[in-house]
Amino acid sequence: MRQYKKRVLSTLFVTSIFSANSFADTNQTKASPAAVKNIIMVVADGMGPVYPVLYRNFKDDPKTNRVEETVFDRLLVGTAATYPHITSGFVTDSAASATALATGVKTYNGAIGVDINKKPLLTVLEYAKIQGMRTGLVSTSQIVHATPASYIAKNESRRNYNDIADDFFDNRAEGKIVADVMIGGGVDYFIRDDRNLVQEFTDSGYQYVDTFPGLSVLKPGSQTNVLALLADVALPAAMDSEFDTPLLTMSKAAIEQLENNQHGYFLLIEASQVDWAGHANDIAYAMAEMEDLATTMSYLESYVQQHQDTLVVLTADHNTGGVSIGAKGKYQWQGKWLKNLKMSPAEIARTIREDAISKSQIEALLGFSLTEQQAKDLLSAEDNKHTYIKLKAILDQKTHTGWTTGGHTGVDVPVYATGPGAEKFFGHQDNTDIGKQVFQILNHKD
Amino acid sequence: MRQYKKRVLSTLFVTSIFSANSFADTNQTKASPAAVKNIIMVVADGMGPVYPVLYRNFKDDPKTNRVEETVFDRLLVGTAATYPHITSGFVTDSAASATALATGVKTYNGAIGVDINKKPLLTVLEYAKIQGMRTGLVSTSQIVHATPASYIAKNESRRNYNDIADDFFDNRAEGKIVADVMIGGGVDYFIRDDRNLVQEFTDSGYQYVDTFPGLSVLKPGSQTNVLALLADVALPAAMDSEFDTPLLTMSKAAIEQLENNQHGYFLLIEASQVDWAGHANDIAYAMAEMEDLATTMSYLESYVQQHQDTLVVLTADHNTGGVSIGAKGKYQWQGKWLKNLKMSPAEIARTIREDAISKSQIEALLGFSLTEQQAKDLLSAEDNKHTYIKLKAILDQKTHTGWTTGGHTGVDVPVYATGPGAEKFFGHQDNTDIGKQVFQILNHKD
Repeated sequence: MRQYKKRVLSTLFVTSIFSANSFADTNQTKASPAAVKNIIMVVADGMGPVYPVLYRNFKDDPKTNRVEETVFDRLLVGTAATYPHITSGFVTDSAASATALATGVKTYNGAIGVDINKKPLLTVLEYAKIQGMRTGLVSTSQIVHATPASYIAKNESRRNYNDIADDFFDNRAEGKIVADVMIGGGVDYFIRDDRNLVQEFTDSGYQYVDTFPGLSVLKPGSQTNVLALLADVALPAAMDSEFDTPLLTMSKAAIEQLENNQHGYFLLIEASQVDWAGHANDIAYAMAEMEDLATTMSYLESYVQQHQDTLVVLTADHNTGGVSIGAKGKYQWQGKWLKNLKMSPAEIARTIREDAISKSQIEALLGFSLTEQQAKDLLSAEDNKHTYIKLKAILDQKTHTGWTTGGHTGVDVPVYATGPGAEKFFGHQDNTDIGKQVFQILNHKD
Repeated sequence: MRQYKKRVLSTLFVTSIFSANSFADTNQTKASPAAVKNIIMVVADGMGPVYPVLYRNFKDDPKTNRVEETVFDRLLVGTAATYPHITSGFVTDSAASATALATGVKTYNGAIGVDINKKPLLTVLEYAKIQGMRTGLVSTSQIVHATPASYIAKNESRRNYNDIADDFFDNRAEGKIVADVMIGGGVDYFIRDDRNLVQEFTDSGYQYVDTFPGLSVLKPGSQTNVLALLADVALPAAMDSEFDTPLLTMSKAAIEQLENNQHGYFLLIEASQVDWAGHANDIAYAMAEMEDLATTMSYLESYVQQHQDTLVVLTADHNTGGVSIGAKGKYQWQGKWLKNLKMSPAEIARTIREDAISKSQIEALLGFSLTEQQAKDLLSAEDNKHTYIKLKAILDQKTHTGWTTGGHTGVDVPVYATGPGAEKFFGHQDNTDIGKQVFQILNHKD
């Protein structure tokens, strides 16, 4: 498929950009007076409508008489439906939804940048590149994971990570590699027995770094390109990271590399692991990932205040976990139990098993006391996995958090925006409308 | 408490309406150019963000290649936080939330129109009455239930139904009974051994009816007042009603009685039983109540098109049930199994038990086939309650619906609006902001 796809893509780029996704002819009016130079699209994977409210409650200052507003509250503009092409039913995966956001077209679950006939689609990132913008991807997962991949690669299956990594180098628009800056995990997909893509990128003039400290020694504000692969596969959970606010750190580094371009930039930032916390039904992990996202969004909010030509849009691709604030009849939720964990619940579970620690040592890691029964349950579990399951049950019980699934659910997701053009995302929309609106904005850029 | 409360309320009405809820001084600018004459506030009890999406999926036409838009999609403008006064934690009940919507003030769970010190608060309905507007309440629960009660009564506890019914007659603004039109259930609270409120209302000139057909013989478009109590306690579920679209029928009747008033009207409509379906974790019941609500909202949408001086706002007081679209790892949801039930699942369960019906008779009531095991489970349950539980489990399994609780959850709820002033509800807000905005609009009327 790849050879065929590349030919089609090349055709798309050169001749068909205005009809490929039927976005360009739907509205010939000019964009709003405030000019959009830069677009930052943030996708919080799995962040259905409950997560930002959980986070608000988690951050509540108990010394005040109110629940403090968050950056999400300030920036909310609407909601988006997420269902995939009807052949895949009502509940999307990340690939179909990211393809919808990136291209404005519904597709089947598993599809990366291709439609239901597996034909490649033009993405907003590719179109931005054609228009002379610098482009970037940031992700806390491997950079070839479904969401970032859908903005740049074309593949019939999200599982074909190596092919997708190849696309990151091979897909070119007008002779240029499509993404100028890529920061995330995934060394294992770029340095393989059959191909060393890191070498190919550096031979093409990309700066390459593979550590967080490396990001700070990149040539600042330059027009050279960057590949930063900071983990073999995904980055560690924020709770287990050696470095604070990994998403913010990567996002700032990417912006610093992308800005100062006459024609602006398009940056896709994915907060990947809200989804993984949801799949794991792990409320502590979820809140820590939301914290990194909120810190990033606060930075972007102030960035837009200083750069009034920058549009920031945040949404989720779907909801994960069927999480609820209150469970099993309790009209309560208590986030205080999640504030003092020394590492992620998965790592605490591993430590309990592998280091054979005592009840008081477990309590030190959790930041709260256990009953004798709870400690016994944790210490007697048959393996890491079951220790982790029991630990999550304790956290759910103490916080009154509920879950319906280890998978995705089909609720509409929140949409947030700030900067010029933010009003285009007001109210209810389909996830494909978000892709179409970004095309419209790109289409009417100076 | 009632004597004290009535004195304070009288004072509120006469002297303190502009400071009571500190709403009037926050914004001295005039309302938007389009004048608001009438306000219809709709509260869908328990309708968190998942229900309108479930309903969209439920109504999907499988013959088309897309999921059809609903009235909710057309009218969405934002979201609202629902948490009660912080002394009650993060998860509200209907009383605290309805009081927030009605007065703009946070209070404790269980409070009806009073603050955390049990002091009475002025409501938007009362303020509308003071301004010469006609006022009404419609509810599919008993009309003294928490949501409608909070717009008109003052009580330290939602459980004091008889006291609340007394308030419906006794609370007066400038010598007039506060609600001109009341349509819902609740005969048992109005005709009691100690007091016959129906007699008192009719003696005061109210028309009284106690059947749905009675609504259609009310003197049309008159300025006489109406009390309609259509059930001893709550109305039957829409699925079990003799009459189609009970909420729409009552809403139309109320509007017909309220309109043609020089100073307009304020009407509170509660779709009460979305909440009860959520408490029961009954997806079929929920979809039928949503259908009645959607039909009502479609009517109100067209009413606003014909009466451009009417503002309609819809929100929920909280979420109920922790329902999810997809459950237990399945990326699916199938509403087709809910389309052919001949009565509510609770009534089908009762029929299975009490009429000792056969497998094929059960299948005829459900509109789908059962496995031998499913039929056996239903027929062998120990009592009505367990037959109902087993039937709901079958429906959840077939539709892939999940639930986390038989109670409420703390997610933000959607906000919908159409008509002049709708833009005041855009984006994220607190539920108290909705009350404050309605006060603002009333304050700048004409």
